[in-house]
Amino acid sequence: MKRTGSILDTIASPADLKRLTVRELVRLGDELRRETVSAVSVTGGHLGASLGVVELTVALHAVFDTPRDTLIFDVGHQCYPHKILTGRRDRMRTLRQGGGLSGFTKRSESEYDPFGAAHASTSISAGLGFAVARDLLGDGGDVVCVIGDGALSAGMAYEAMNNAGHLGKRLIVILNDNEMSISPPVGALSKHLMQLYTERKFQDFRALARGAVALLPPPLQKGAARARGLVKDLVIGGSLFEDLGFSYVGPVDGHDTRQLLAVLRTVKDRADGPVLIHVLTEKGKGYGPAEKAADKYHGVSRFDIVSGRQHKAAPQAPSYTAVFADGLMREAERDPRIVAVTAAMASGTGLDKFQQRFPDRCFDVGIAEQHAVTFCAGLAAAGMRPFCAIYSTFLQRGYDQIVHDVALQKLPVRFAIDRAGLVGEDGATHAGAFDIGFLTNLPGFVVMAAADEAELVHMIATAAALDDTPSAFRYPRGEGTGALLPQRGVPLEPGRGRVVRQGGKIALLSLGGRLTECLKAADELDARGLPTTVADARFAKPLDRYLILQLARHHEVVVTIEEGAAGGFGAHVLHLLSAEGVLDRGLTIRTLCLPDRFIDHDTPAAMYAEAGLDAAAIVSAVHAALGMHRRREILPLGLASAIA
Amino acid sequence: MKRTGSILDTIASPADLKRLTVRELVRLGDELRRETVSAVSVTGGHLGASLGVVELTVALHAVFDTPRDTLIFDVGHQCYPHKILTGRRDRMRTLRQGGGLSGFTKRSESEYDPFGAAHASTSISAGLGFAVARDLLGDGGDVVCVIGDGALSAGMAYEAMNNAGHLGKRLIVILNDNEMSISPPVGALSKHLMQLYTERKFQDFRALARGAVALLPPPLQKGAARARGLVKDLVIGGSLFEDLGFSYVGPVDGHDTRQLLAVLRTVKDRADGPVLIHVLTEKGKGYGPAEKAADKYHGVSRFDIVSGRQHKAAPQAPSYTAVFADGLMREAERDPRIVAVTAAMASGTGLDKFQQRFPDRCFDVGIAEQHAVTFCAGLAAAGMRPFCAIYSTFLQRGYDQIVHDVALQKLPVRFAIDRAGLVGEDGATHAGAFDIGFLTNLPGFVVMAAADEAELVHMIATAAALDDTPSAFRYPRGEGTGALLPQRGVPLEPGRGRVVRQGGKIALLSLGGRLTECLKAADELDARGLPTTVADARFAKPLDRYLILQLARHHEVVVTIEEGAAGGFGAHVLHLLSAEGVLDRGLTIRTLCLPDRFIDHDTPAAMYAEAGLDAAAIVSAVHAALGMHRRREILPLGLASAIA
Repeated sequence: MKRTGSILDTIASPADLKRLTVRELVRLGDELRRETVSAVSVTGGHLGASLGVVELTVALHAVFDTPRDTLIFDVGHQCYPHKILTGRRDRMRTLRQGGGLSGFTKRSESEYDPFGAAHASTSISAGLGFAVARDLLGDGGDVVCVIGDGALSAGMAYEAMNNAGHLGKRLIVILNDNEMSISPPVGALSKHLMQLYTERKFQDFRALARGAVALLPPPLQKGAARARGLVKDLVIGGSLFEDLGFSYVGPVDGHDTRQLLAVLRTVKDRADGPVLIHVLTEKGKGYGPAEKAADKYHGVSRFDIVSGRQHKAAPQAPSYTAVFADGLMREAERDPRIVAVTAAMASGTGLDKFQQRFPDRCFDVGIAEQHAVTFCAGLAAAGMRPFCAIYSTFLQRGYDQIVHDVALQKLPVRFAIDRAGLVGEDGATHAGAFDIGFLTNLPGFVVMAAADEAELVHMIATAAALDDTPSAFRYPRGEGTGALLPQRGVPLEPGRGRVVRQGGKIALLSLGGRLTECLKAADELDARGLPTTVADARFAKPLDRYLILQLARHHEVVVTIEEGAAGGFGAHVLHLLSAEGVLDRGLTIRTLCLPDRFIDHDTPAAMYAEAGLDAAAIVSAVHAALGMHRRREILPLGLASAIA
Repeated sequence: MKRTGSILDTIASPADLKRLTVRELVRLGDELRRETVSAVSVTGGHLGASLGVVELTVALHAVFDTPRDTLIFDVGHQCYPHKILTGRRDRMRTLRQGGGLSGFTKRSESEYDPFGAAHASTSISAGLGFAVARDLLGDGGDVVCVIGDGALSAGMAYEAMNNAGHLGKRLIVILNDNEMSISPPVGALSKHLMQLYTERKFQDFRALARGAVALLPPPLQKGAARARGLVKDLVIGGSLFEDLGFSYVGPVDGHDTRQLLAVLRTVKDRADGPVLIHVLTEKGKGYGPAEKAADKYHGVSRFDIVSGRQHKAAPQAPSYTAVFADGLMREAERDPRIVAVTAAMASGTGLDKFQQRFPDRCFDVGIAEQHAVTFCAGLAAAGMRPFCAIYSTFLQRGYDQIVHDVALQKLPVRFAIDRAGLVGEDGATHAGAFDIGFLTNLPGFVVMAAADEAELVHMIATAAALDDTPSAFRYPRGEGTGALLPQRGVPLEPGRGRVVRQGGKIALLSLGGRLTECLKAADELDARGLPTTVADARFAKPLDRYLILQLARHHEVVVTIEEGAAGGFGAHVLHLLSAEGVLDRGLTIRTLCLPDRFIDHDTPAAMYAEAGLDAAAIVSAVHAALGMHRRREILPLGLASAIA
């Protein structure tokens, strides 16, 4: 073995870690950190989280026998060192690129990713499933979940611990406590964690390595009751985790490989029941620019390794997120009843700016979408005008609360839904695909989608003005279209769309951000002798009945376009047309929506092309429809009255 | 005042409690209990929970100034005594009847119901919203949430406590600990609660009434940090609630009115920040038959007060729930990989029987749908065949987990969706209205709906056999149709419906339990000279393309019928027909689904009539469609090949 050469170069799989000395494992960590920085400097990605778990990843793979042992990373964005050690080093510079490695763990990518992730707080539930299956099947093997302190603020992690503590199965949970999720921590739990490690010194876990101290006594009794008492002698005081039936071990220095190895080995040898190991790490650890940055390089563009300077393309237009934040602040200046709620996405939703301007009227509730929604319902019931800003994909977490607490009670909660549609590098797990469907089904909801950033400003004003019904407006990730922003938003009439461009033969009815592509498609169709009307529905609910009937009446082909799954806007247009008897007479209508498959990460443009929702695909759909279409009588053109 | 007459008769509103002595309040409690029993003996309802909180309800209304103070009952099924005291006594015998009082709290019913409920664990989130609004608006007033120990197992309650502990607002949470939610408690939390009250005697809260002991010192410091220390002198040891930033007061005997009054008055006078009062109650308290029953009369039919005997109509056929349980047990006998998971609904889903038969293969995870779904995903990833049995309305709680952990990873979790469609007395909050829509949108899902209990047996077998994709089957609440049950289920071919009855002019395409009504409608249409085909789609996804195209081709009118909201089965049929160009040529199609409004509690038959989904409504819809319909050429009849 070349002691002076690269150790990392000798690692083909985690099995190769077993033959390394502790000293070599420490060196491997250093190499792994450099390799991680190097790879992400090329691709961009979630750097900070991965740098924080370099030593932990080395120690886990040195102690446990993956993939026989099940290692589940919560969220999965901290898995880059894990990917490098598990046979994917040669593809690390394809990370988050089209056709390349996912930025998260992914079952289809490697047998070392037994359970994929991207949304937070799922790992303990999944791990418990593996542990129960192991015991039923008699398979043996360990189950280890690595979960951050931020992810523990989610109710689902609590539900899982409550169940795991009750079942008493052997299950190892590593709490990767870096005192921040994406933003600085919120919630009483983070104070509790801080208390745990400020009240206690690091245990002398080094002694474990020498065999002088047994961290956990050998198994004597069964079940959670015993687990509760196991570590009482070594760990001072109680913790929430012990109340939930876990043995608590820690705190452990997450950058001290020796300590980590000692603790993990002891727990592996002795644990009997659920154990939580509290590991303290630093996000961005070991890379100067990341350590100095406020967000610890949570998510970065590709960057220069020496300076840490990120290569960001100069924006052509303000982002939808920024326009939302500015627009909401302008409304809030005029209306003291406006408050804003986010679930651990203050900067992602732009509410960090709102928070600075209105510190008493902005609430980051942690990764707690269920609570966020009902908290807003309570605020609305008490007379406030709450805006609940949650990404489309994460809003799925609060669906029952939207139905039961908001819609059923007709409470005027305003949902600001960022990241609607396909999102690019974060891939299928973050796609905002289902909200149009799951909101338009709800009686009384007003559901809007912004075609550009100017429309977004008006939709904020519309939502603010809607005081007797729930409302939602969705908008895409990324930059706007460069539309001229209005001085202030003017409330739209609910259920009223607009004709953007008048043609005659073809009608494109767009909901949301595909309007630009519709206009491009219309130009091309015009050029081919197919005069094309383009309308912006603005509202998925209520529908603009008059506009839709006019479009159907006066065009040979009608195509709806939306950035969402089937069962959404196009479906409701079809419901309307069937109920009105329009389909009885024949109507060549096509509903373009996201296809019935998940679309992997790539650039948003490539993803939309793949989804059949770009201008070229719209043109093709029109031609295909025309080809199929049996000519029917077209009524005389008379669209003028439908023009906004 | 007539000291010997009824005190309850003198109570027009809670304000009247303020003039009563403690002795009179105790008597009022006794009268209130009798009145509650009397009312529910006529209507049926959630008796046990209400009997448990009689004294607590009296004490709350005596101490707090509702409706100025905000009193929120979690779930709301324990609110009958509250309804009696808040001006609804004269309507108590309309409880859960069509046009009568709701069985839960409901905003539209009374100003004393500031936040309605029915699903569990929402009260702390909503209450925090009220508390924050109060402080922003300077309105004053207290916010009191009453939540059961079962409801605390839900992650959303934890999310709310975590946020409340962080914000430090004055908020009073009453933990109504009766050691059971609907079934006996599960989870480590319940062990923790038990420990709290077995380790400690009841505090001598009576001394408070005499002013000898101050429960909470006067405000000195601000915020949660102070709240944590407030009660340290009176309460021994720590608790999970203190870790989450709450002051913990208790345990208190929930049937001792004097103690309750003393504690509530002291907390009202002195609390500064979030306080949790741990009150021990007995479900069914004070009514012999309820106290003796295993479920403490959780939900009862109307009954005889003296004997406690419930008047249940003799069942005509086994319930879908029972058929599901039996069917799954038969599958599980043959297949050791089958496991069952429920979220606090072991008896409601029939899994209590499965639990007895296969104690190691049945998991009640508590009110924890998010965890339940991902736990199943973990089980599936580890090679088990999990059946996740959750009511349609509660499955909304696990939607993100269905998308992110199950569908995206294509894991073969089987969802058994009970209470699909309208459910009767539990009303709009419990309607299973949205699952067809939110599941059929998901790539790869197989979504079935049972037309009768024999179909259900086959669908269980189908789901068991589907090993490479997620699946779901939904079935209604209540009795089956009396269909002959097969000896064992035979897997259906995914995406293959069946023609149940052949006609010629009209086609009814049913998904799920409305098939019986479709057959009735067909008889009537036939009698009117409109020969009617009836098909059972069986699958909402994948659709039976061939069957649907044949029905469209050979009938003048096609009507789809489903027990779900728009955007579901009918919508996907329309998507298909538009994509196939069938609509180009004209098709008189109508999609009958739940209307775009919430439907209040009544008998299921009355609710379906109101929804336009019974035989009469189907006949009307066909006639209306025929009237609108411009005749078009009908292709020759040739359905034979589509018959299953």
